[in-house]
Amino acid sequence: MLIRAFVPAHITAFFVPVFNENPLLAGSIGAGINLEKGTNIFVTTENGPERHIHIAFNGEPVERNNAIISYSVAEKMIPKDFSGEIEVWQYFDFPNGYGFGNSAAGALGTALALAFNFKEKTFLQASQVAHKYEVLYKGGLGDVIAQFYGGIELRIKPGAPGIGVVDNIFFEGYKVLTLPLGRISTKEVLDSDVIKLIEEEGKRSLEEVLKYPRVEVLMKAARAFSERTGLLTGELLEIAIELDKDLRLPSSMVMLGKSLFALLREDEIEKIKATLTDLTIERYHICEVYTQRPSVERWMGGSL
Amino acid sequence: MLIRAFVPAHITAFFVPVFNENPLLAGSIGAGINLEKGTNIFVTTENGPERHIHIAFNGEPVERNNAIISYSVAEKMIPKDFSGEIEVWQYFDFPNGYGFGNSAAGALGTALALAFNFKEKTFLQASQVAHKYEVLYKGGLGDVIAQFYGGIELRIKPGAPGIGVVDNIFFEGYKVLTLPLGRISTKEVLDSDVIKLIEEEGKRSLEEVLKYPRVEVLMKAARAFSERTGLLTGELLEIAIELDKDLRLPSSMVMLGKSLFALLREDEIEKIKATLTDLTIERYHICEVYTQRPSVERWMGGSL
Repeated sequence: MLIRAFVPAHITAFFVPVFNENPLLAGSIGAGINLEKGTNIFVTTENGPERHIHIAFNGEPVERNNAIISYSVAEKMIPKDFSGEIEVWQYFDFPNGYGFGNSAAGALGTALALAFNFKEKTFLQASQVAHKYEVLYKGGLGDVIAQFYGGIELRIKPGAPGIGVVDNIFFEGYKVLTLPLGRISTKEVLDSDVIKLIEEEGKRSLEEVLKYPRVEVLMKAARAFSERTGLLTGELLEIAIELDKDLRLPSSMVMLGKSLFALLREDEIEKIKATLTDLTIERYHICEVYTQRPSVERWMGGSL
Repeated sequence: MLIRAFVPAHITAFFVPVFNENPLLAGSIGAGINLEKGTNIFVTTENGPERHIHIAFNGEPVERNNAIISYSVAEKMIPKDFSGEIEVWQYFDFPNGYGFGNSAAGALGTALALAFNFKEKTFLQASQVAHKYEVLYKGGLGDVIAQFYGGIELRIKPGAPGIGVVDNIFFEGYKVLTLPLGRISTKEVLDSDVIKLIEEEGKRSLEEVLKYPRVEVLMKAARAFSERTGLLTGELLEIAIELDKDLRLPSSMVMLGKSLFALLREDEIEKIKATLTDLTIERYHICEVYTQRPSVERWMGGSL
């Protein structure tokens, strides 16, 4: 039996990290956008004499140490009395480490697919397992709950799904442009002096958007956050300024990756494509906002 | 500009009412099912010299007293400085008062459509307005938050969306059969001696489903709840027993309406249709579970 789960990629626009010894209470507040591109997770289970878990990223098997979050989730989600082979295949539309929430998506999709398979845990219970290991192994703080609820989201209370609270804002007529340009170590940023500025600016940005819950306000707050914290600088800032010339709303930086994003109207697409060609940026995505829950289903489609 | 919102019908399987002076903290715990049939809400706004709100049910204008929940929601959701005509058209797939959450759906759809139109409130803010007036005018206690999250749901913490917590269980291969047979006054039941039994049995049922979160357990718990509370009796119970002969899972009673529901597998549909014909029951629905959020969009379709 093959189960497929889809979890959207998640871009964080601004955030305040919230640490706690209890990983279910740790998380972040802030805002972000879920995308129609993301991570597809396929899970197969086969009874057998021994219990083995195999995880593959983009078709390549990965060792436990390099997929510790998903391995931990799988171990927790598979019933203790199950014996046999479990394969978890994760396919990512965005590169790992660029700020698109891949580790959270893999963890959440693995948890949901296994919960669907065994029918022993609820949606919230499964997603709390994903959140817990994301936090413990520092994959991220707020991606799991953001991806769980979808849409253009405001995380107004930190924590795992069922504990934290996610709100959504209404929007229409926008697609999302994303430019994955490189990696940033989340850990290095969170351990640095920038953290105090991030907390101040993150809170201020969230308050602004809650006061006027519109995407226009969100994008302005996101850009202000990325510049005031000093995270958006150098070449990345130069590209952002070029993009802005074609767009009604400011572009901003993906937290935390060397990546940019912007909201686009239909009539801005051709112009921005030409600009990206001028900038010799070949790798970019234009996609819709994903406004639903992650999907989980028995997969009747073709082979992997 | 025409906005359309769709909010699923919601069947409560079992529940524990939770009263509180603060309507945002009042609600219910329990379980239920959201359906692909429900309420479509169309909203038009037109600027003008005077502020007027018009609400219609199934194409017929209704007076303020007969649609007090939706009128109150609309008044709260329309910005104070707006002047002009607002029309709210609500179309119900199920009859009012039969236990399908129509008043909550109308209130929630009105709130979401107006929030989409004016872009001054978030999803949670809008749905809290709907929940508040549902509770204040005794339309219901848990329908708004159940409809807000969709699926086969467990309400594990009472309250409005953003305060209460809704979980979901995984299922596959089931459709929902519903038989709307008549009205029951929710108020009369909640004011009667049955309330203590409802509290005991509702808590017990929820614990059982949280322990083994499967639809099979849910339907058995629902049926036990409906019989042990004495709510499912007489002719309604006789029909339920007839339905059970064709089905793997027990049928149960919709809380609170003189209505029945059951989960159906594909291979049970023909048999149950024949049985319903034998019972001379002509009004029934077979539909899918609605697993998403309510939809809200600018409506480009034909005329109303």
